[in-house]
Parts: sequence; structure tokens; C-alpha cells
Amino acid sequence: MPDLTFAVKAHSESPARTRVSVRNFTLVVDEPPELGGTDAGPNPVETVLAAFAGCLNVVAHLVAKEQGLTLRDLELEASGALNPDRLMNQPTSDRAGFKQIAVTLRFHTDASPEAVERWRREVEARCPVSDNLSHITPVKLIAEHKT
Amino acid sequence: MPDLTFAVKAHSESPARTRVSVRNFTLVVDEPPELGGTDAGPNPVETVLAAFAGCLNVVAHLVAKEQGLTLRDLELEASGALNPDRLMNQPTSDRAGFKQIAVTLRFHTDASPEAVERWRREVEARCPVSDNLSHITPVKLIAEHKT
Repeated sequence: MPDLTFAVKAHSESPARTRVSVRNFTLVVDEPPELGGTDAGPNPVETVLAAFAGCLNVVAHLVAKEQGLTLRDLELEASGALNPDRLMNQPTSDRAGFKQIAVTLRFHTDASPEAVERWRREVEARCPVSDNLSHITPVKLIAEHKT
Repeated sequence: MPDLTFAVKAHSESPARTRVSVRNFTLVVDEPPELGGTDAGPNPVETVLAAFAGCLNVVAHLVAKEQGLTLRDLELEASGALNPDRLMNQPTSDRAGFKQIAVTLRFHTDASPEAVERWRREVEARCPVSDNLSHITPVKLIAEHKT
């Protein structure tokens, strides 16, 4: 298939709060007060976890259907820990972002443990968000002056 | 500082639509009809771009303040392209996720091009979402049977 392009536009409403337009949708990303925001929405790293859970839902069902694996009542919990020191310009050897992201997928199935493990590995390999997090994704920031 | 832990819980409402709970917030992640969903919200990879824009807004202002760089009326555009073949189980040598992510940051400033470039590099290095995308982040998927 040809590549699909996805894009969002965003506007800084404050140094912590961002209004993001995605097609006909609007998301507000903010920080809680202790991180300098007004708590008008999930924060950026929580939004990454939400995206990851959403992507895994899609791929979990797609792969289950292909493999004939029953998958009912799927619930997901995603979490990660990060040290804010690099962000805050404090001395640290830790990275800026999540050190690891763990996602638990809980569901009803009558599949064998071996079939579930085969499904799990395939989901991880084919989920676009999993790929972008677990492998290097080139990122390009372009600064432009408004005129 | 001690590590901060972030977490979300999510429920599969359909094979394409996910309802995500983040503290007191709810996000709906879905796919448009052509990707098998009901278009009730941004899709997972659009949500990654939204998270990235939100994170860059925070770090852009934080670093500008540190460096004494004026930054007014910040707007961001984030985009990326991916080949859906791996997701869809079609033969391909392409990866599953975005091949690259580009973000344009547009703003008013009276800073010199050199000062802007110094700021841009620091923003990229300290943004947690930029770090998680542009470097390897270990991802752990745990499958659990409901009882």
C-alpha cells in the first residue's frame, strides 16, 4: 500500500497547555498544577500511554482474528516511570523520557498459553506505536519565525 | 528527584475504539471508517503526534525561559508517514510505525538564528516524548487471562 500520512496542528494556550487539532477533533494536553499547568487535560506522557493502549486494542483484535484466537472483554493498563531531572536541567545520567513502558492486556480467552504467547509477540511486532517507541524513530524539529 | 510514574487504564469498546481513563480525564481513541472504526476520536498514531506537540510546547517554553529567549504565539504542526503493510500482514520491508516524525514550531522571537538553533537542540534533547520516540524505549506487553 502507499504510505499514509497523519498530521496534527497545535496552538500553545499557555507554557503548559496545548490545544491540538486532529481533523475534526480537539485534544487539550496540559500539566497538573505541581508540574506548572492548570490540569485541563492529560499530560503529554499520559497521552503517549493512551495512544499506545489505543493502538494495542486495534492490533490485538486484528491479530486475534487472523490467528483464530478468541479475545473478549479486553482491558489494558499502561504505565511508565521517568526521572524529570533532565527535563528540569538538573544533573542526572537518566534519560528524559520513560525508562520503560509496561502494558498489561487482560481478557477472556479459551486459547492455550502457547497460542496467547504467539499472539502477544505478533501484536508487539505489528503495532505502529509499539514500533515507534521500541525502535529508533528519526525526529526532526524545524524552528520557523512568524512574520 | 525521585522517578514519577504515569499510568492509564483503557477498555476496548470495539476492535477499533478504546476508551482511556487518565486520572479524571477520558480520551476516546478510534479509527476512521476506512481503517475499520467509527471515527469517535483521533486514531492512535495521531494521538502520538498530539502528545509530542503537547510535550514540545512545555519544553519549548521552559528552555526559552532558561536561555532568555523570547517565544511568543507558538504554533506547532506535527506529521509523519507510515506504511500500513506490516500492520495489515502484507509483505513489506518497511517498519510498522512512522518512518520519521517532523514537527514545525512557528513563533515570534527577536532572538538570533544562532540562539534559536541552540534553543532548538536543547528542546529536542530534553523533551521526554522526543526522547522516547528518537531512542529505544523498552516495551513490555503482559497478557493476562481474566478469571
